[in-house]
Amino acid sequence: MERNIYISWLLDFYGALLTEKQRTVLELHYNEDLSLGEIAEQEGISRQGVYDAAKRAETALCHMEQQLGLLERHIKMKQFFADWLERLQKIEVQPSSTDLLQVLTENIKDYLS
Amino acid sequence: MERNIYISWLLDFYGALLTEKQRTVLELHYNEDLSLGEIAEQEGISRQGVYDAAKRAETALCHMEQQLGLLERHIKMKQFFADWLERLQKIEVQPSSTDLLQVLTENIKDYLS
Repeated sequence: MERNIYISWLLDFYGALLTEKQRTVLELHYNEDLSLGEIAEQEGISRQGVYDAAKRAETALCHMEQQLGLLERHIKMKQFFADWLERLQKIEVQPSSTDLLQVLTENIKDYLS
Repeated sequence: MERNIYISWLLDFYGALLTEKQRTVLELHYNEDLSLGEIAEQEGISRQGVYDAAKRAETALCHMEQQLGLLERHIKMKQFFADWLERLQKIEVQPSSTDLLQVLTENIKDYLS
């Protein structure tokens, strides 16, 4: 997984445990695609301050994932259900069950989206 | 959900972020069913020390759940798949798909267990 996307996912899982400043910096950088210089200007802090907050926040996020592994678990589960859906779609049902299969398939697709 | 079970679940999700002492105390109390007095004796710390560590640890776990809500998300997801399994079992398949349905059903049951 690309690093930017990885950090963005970690932020989604564990961001609430960061300080507000750390979370803001990472959200602006990874989700809003602002440069560190742009964040410094917008937030009224030095570029070095932004850099330090981002580094500390990334280290904290990676530590939490290393300890808890919830993102990894989430990714494995999505893969499990994606494989599962693929096989479900191969099932041939009796005409009376067509609608039910359709609903179940849509539910899994919603879940995976 | 009963409080003991709830704390035990939180411990399962977030325990790695506690200090070793906090985690040990809660594991012995909630998973091994030892009293605070028994833990104090076993670990060679005062009963008050055990009590304080347990209180701090429980507060930390509840705070993490309040911030991240991963246990709640997990419970909802299990419920979603339990409902889903119930409906899957009502599907009537063509004879050629009997084995496939069986495998898919077993997979979901394994996941839920």
